[in-house]
Amino acid sequence: LHPDEDLPLSIEAIHAAATQLAGVAVRTPLLESPLLNDRLGSRVLVKAECLQRTGSFKFRGAYNAVSAAGGRPVVAFSSGNHAQGVAHAAALLGIRSTIIMPSDAPRTKLENTRAYGAEVVLYDRWTEDREAIGARIAGERGAVLVRPYDDPYVMAGQGTVGLEITEDCQTRGIVPDMVLAPASGGGLIAGVATAVRAEFDRAAVLTAEPMHFDDHARSLAAGQRVSNDGKGNTICDALMAPKPGELTFKVNSRLLAGGAVADEPAVREAMRTAFHYFKLVVEPGGAVALAAVLTGAVPIRGRTVVAVLSGGNVDRDLFAQVISEGING
Amino acid sequence: LHPDEDLPLSIEAIHAAATQLAGVAVRTPLLESPLLNDRLGSRVLVKAECLQRTGSFKFRGAYNAVSAAGGRPVVAFSSGNHAQGVAHAAALLGIRSTIIMPSDAPRTKLENTRAYGAEVVLYDRWTEDREAIGARIAGERGAVLVRPYDDPYVMAGQGTVGLEITEDCQTRGIVPDMVLAPASGGGLIAGVATAVRAEFDRAAVLTAEPMHFDDHARSLAAGQRVSNDGKGNTICDALMAPKPGELTFKVNSRLLAGGAVADEPAVREAMRTAFHYFKLVVEPGGAVALAAVLTGAVPIRGRTVVAVLSGGNVDRDLFAQVISEGING
Repeated sequence: LHPDEDLPLSIEAIHAAATQLAGVAVRTPLLESPLLNDRLGSRVLVKAECLQRTGSFKFRGAYNAVSAAGGRPVVAFSSGNHAQGVAHAAALLGIRSTIIMPSDAPRTKLENTRAYGAEVVLYDRWTEDREAIGARIAGERGAVLVRPYDDPYVMAGQGTVGLEITEDCQTRGIVPDMVLAPASGGGLIAGVATAVRAEFDRAAVLTAEPMHFDDHARSLAAGQRVSNDGKGNTICDALMAPKPGELTFKVNSRLLAGGAVADEPAVREAMRTAFHYFKLVVEPGGAVALAAVLTGAVPIRGRTVVAVLSGGNVDRDLFAQVISEGING
Repeated sequence: LHPDEDLPLSIEAIHAAATQLAGVAVRTPLLESPLLNDRLGSRVLVKAECLQRTGSFKFRGAYNAVSAAGGRPVVAFSSGNHAQGVAHAAALLGIRSTIIMPSDAPRTKLENTRAYGAEVVLYDRWTEDREAIGARIAGERGAVLVRPYDDPYVMAGQGTVGLEITEDCQTRGIVPDMVLAPASGGGLIAGVATAVRAEFDRAAVLTAEPMHFDDHARSLAAGQRVSNDGKGNTICDALMAPKPGELTFKVNSRLLAGGAVADEPAVREAMRTAFHYFKLVVEPGGAVALAAVLTGAVPIRGRTVVAVLSGGNVDRDLFAQVISEGING
């Protein structure tokens, strides 16, 4: 591992984010189940980030970035977890936030974003340009744009997930062989890899992605950013970014061992596993790292593996349907 | 508050249990939701004990009691969470355990108890006497009986739930007005009350019970132990003890402010609330304290209230059914 000064993320930035988030973010537990470990013949630890404020890790990066905005209002584009993270972070910090959301976003997500205190500006995703709307609002209000992943403060905030994993492993005498986290734009895995490999330089850190949205796995293999073809669909609504971020890929192409891919049945099985063994509600996109672990997309036998469960914002009808099917009981 | 030397539980015993459990039990998070707080007009914190090893707080008391058995084998009666707690604690400590379970206990619970490493002895609950079976096994094997609540080590172990609540409140500058925990035999609430009132002597600590099994509420009102009539039924399978424990009631009659009761619709609503706002899987009996908070069985407006979510071992079909109904979404 050769640290490189031109990387947009450092372990020092993650430590600074941890100081910013102390007493604000939930220090989520690193859980394991002896029954699941026995079944798999390996040691699997899950980082329960679905318990984070707003139901996903996105709060961490959002709070760190909003804190760095120097009291100026903030603006963000998002139809999902980043919207709630920015809205709640801004409210806690007493800062005005505007979130630009597609008018066909799920009603619950619109309502939650407003309930967290943001002004929501709707746009028609077929006829309007959200970048132009964002630029106009930023100009009129002197607002700072908080990007969902290609932002050093956001990456550093997400890196506190990795810092907590590292600290908990050290406290408990655990040496992880492998660490997996879901990737959409790649901010979470960039932060996790930077923090984990600063202490465990022999740990393999990998992205986990759903089928048809495996742009990180293919980009890491190709050594350059490649896009998804946009033709497939996925149950993992939080993981639909078209290609790796520019800044995140600088970090990830240096630090990651590769990318694992899981299909939809595996994601659903991982949601059931989180329900049954860990008593956690995990959304499809939040379960994809555990899915990769369970289905043998990575070799786990005899090894110690950490999977980040990154979010829990799932519709109850879908959740009820998923846990009712399959073989876990 | 007048500490009394004849009480079977002290804050010192809880501190000793915390030392025993350090690095073994999960330090479960104390969570809150700004959206739920806004909706209720109060500050509600939940202690996520469903994330504990074996899926319930019972592991804490079991581990503390098995540790105190001096390496001798242990025996317990239980059809539920205590069985898994004792079985897993004994396995971790390298001690042989025998659990006496009714032959009609749910298959999952039988399988899990065996999977945690216990020998399961089945009995017919209509024709056989489990006490006699237990006494025979204890005699033959030199085993120590680990009671589910009327045991000072068990109460002290459960008290670590209260100790963690107290520590987390102090760290975050929170002064709880009210603390509620589910009660069956009363070991958890005895431990919680002892720990919480050692630091917050103005906090009201209350039991929460399901309708038809409100023996603590009635016993506390009467000033003596009274039984349930055994005629009603409840969805809260973990909370069906016929009357308060003898040792636990000595503590509880001294320290508690009273008991709250919740009906089945309120319990189901609390399970949905835990799913929606906290991303937690909570079993019916584990949700009854939150149920009492949500339905106004206790006055919460403008107050800071802690509810213990004591377990998450719920069948998936029941859970799917509960979250699919009602108004949260």
